[in-house]
Amino acid sequence: MTGFTSFADLRAACLDLPAGDAGAAAAAVRRNAVLTKPPGSLGRLEDLVAWLARWQGRALPRLDRVEVIVFAGNHGVVAHGVSAYPVGVTAQMVANFAAGGAAINQLSALAGANLSVIPLSLDAATADFTQEKAMDQAAFLAAVAAGHAAVPAAADLVCLGEMGIGNTTVAAAIAAALFGGGGERWAGRGTGVDDEGLARKRATIDAALARHRPLLGDPLQIAAALGGRELAAILGATLAARRRNIPVLIDGFVCTAAVAPLARLRADALAHTWASHVSAEAGHRALLDALGLAPLVDLGIRLGEASGAAVATLILRAALACHVGMATFAEAGVSDKLPSPAP
Amino acid sequence: MTGFTSFADLRAACLDLPAGDAGAAAAAVRRNAVLTKPPGSLGRLEDLVAWLARWQGRALPRLDRVEVIVFAGNHGVVAHGVSAYPVGVTAQMVANFAAGGAAINQLSALAGANLSVIPLSLDAATADFTQEKAMDQAAFLAAVAAGHAAVPAAADLVCLGEMGIGNTTVAAAIAAALFGGGGERWAGRGTGVDDEGLARKRATIDAALARHRPLLGDPLQIAAALGGRELAAILGATLAARRRNIPVLIDGFVCTAAVAPLARLRADALAHTWASHVSAEAGHRALLDALGLAPLVDLGIRLGEASGAAVATLILRAALACHVGMATFAEAGVSDKLPSPAP
Repeated sequence: MTGFTSFADLRAACLDLPAGDAGAAAAAVRRNAVLTKPPGSLGRLEDLVAWLARWQGRALPRLDRVEVIVFAGNHGVVAHGVSAYPVGVTAQMVANFAAGGAAINQLSALAGANLSVIPLSLDAATADFTQEKAMDQAAFLAAVAAGHAAVPAAADLVCLGEMGIGNTTVAAAIAAALFGGGGERWAGRGTGVDDEGLARKRATIDAALARHRPLLGDPLQIAAALGGRELAAILGATLAARRRNIPVLIDGFVCTAAVAPLARLRADALAHTWASHVSAEAGHRALLDALGLAPLVDLGIRLGEASGAAVATLILRAALACHVGMATFAEAGVSDKLPSPAP
Repeated sequence: MTGFTSFADLRAACLDLPAGDAGAAAAAVRRNAVLTKPPGSLGRLEDLVAWLARWQGRALPRLDRVEVIVFAGNHGVVAHGVSAYPVGVTAQMVANFAAGGAAINQLSALAGANLSVIPLSLDAATADFTQEKAMDQAAFLAAVAAGHAAVPAAADLVCLGEMGIGNTTVAAAIAAALFGGGGERWAGRGTGVDDEGLARKRATIDAALARHRPLLGDPLQIAAALGGRELAAILGATLAARRRNIPVLIDGFVCTAAVAPLARLRADALAHTWASHVSAEAGHRALLDALGLAPLVDLGIRLGEASGAAVATLILRAALACHVGMATFAEAGVSDKLPSPAP
């Protein structure tokens, strides 16, 4: 089912989540223990394999089909001068994705992933959220459903990303609404606004929080009133992946803000996701901390487009290659650890 | 020239280093600025490309030929019970490398790299450095020369790694000798010694420092008296790469300790290297800090074998793929940044 008829309907779906396959994860841990290396010496690569096993439900996980899905949306809030780029760049970048010229094209190819780009009503930006809800219930649920439908059941891993001029303002507003603090805590320079632009972002976020204060107790209403279509789609895709036994790599600040409402609805809702990186965007580390997510890498990337998730896919492939390809101590005739105490 | 006739001869070579191609690096930075992304938004991926350009001497760098070179050696200090594994594991793992069963086999293949494993007199361990110099001048220079000769002039990138039961004790002794502090500061659990083993490591290191105190003002004599053949070879290979315009990814704690004497001889000697990762081995972060090296990733890996460097190669490939493959703003018809101040 990918259609949701109401906030209540979607909320019920967000609360009814599978727990993952603990047996598959345990099997991966057992295999890791007999491979020709000191126990634990591959660090987080070992954790990643157990995580893949759990959420794929396979003792020996695989990455045969990796899907990078980038959702694009436009934002009424751009009228407040919160971005360093004009709003038309969203559609121009979608064309660039189609032509193969963006960073995510190169990174998806390198990671052996299929790239899908899904523009969501780019010619109809969301409403200016300082004045009204960015999306009404119907528009929000339609975007969630688009994201939910975009996740192929046969995928082994999904990398989620976004493109949308103005959407770091949107992400900061969601983070503020969910975790407290205002524009000063959560707004950063995004694609590169100057000091005046940053001040406008903060003021815009604070105005939106004040405007929608009655809704701020409800994570899904926050996602509708302060969000954007591409963020709603990422929420829907993350939910779909959980229901379909597909682990998810989330990308940067915007993507993390998009899935944060799920974690406010149910504490373990993001257990099937891994934060691929911590962005250089100001609020991202604080948001990851608030969600208890540990990013895989910190490379100062702040591009969006699922670029960090695609880079993290390379590390997942490294983890899986070791797990699948290494010999065991017995197979290789390598002596195991000395009995303790050592001689 | 790969043969060195004396410490003085080698020291002279270590002081006579090319500066890299600043023009090539500047050209890479210029191209980065016009690619379809906000300026700087690929973070360290952009820095990596400029670094490759500088040290390859190519405005458009390449990674067509990546060489992973793992040197193996044995250590007399193992007699003190400083490792969780028996000394025979060094040769057993070399056989495992040859058979394709180790982590580095999987990671090299994934990274598109050629793997070479060079065992150095495994049947003749270095001397117990608590009693005498681990290597005399001739043995040390032979190992340096072996490493120097192992670097193909046509390589675009070299990843250096090691295998040697007991060599985290050796690495800690070198770090202590170069940067002060004793076994307590620098020794960690290596492949997994227990508390008693850790205490033995510390005491062994302190005994070695006391034994060789008269030599501790000379980085190369430290590398001979407290080092090991595989570490000396890594030093030689790092020197050779600098002379041959080849950037180097260094691996974990042992590899970093192996090249540290170069930095003590000449402050910029490691400018053509990048620290691929920070190991979970206790002393690594402190050693990187002492050398002013910023590791690319922190994945809790503590395996050696160039495993961290091979993972970092994947990130280098990501950086290069973006740099080479992305469209420029002009090519893609994407609007550049708004004039500042924004509207």
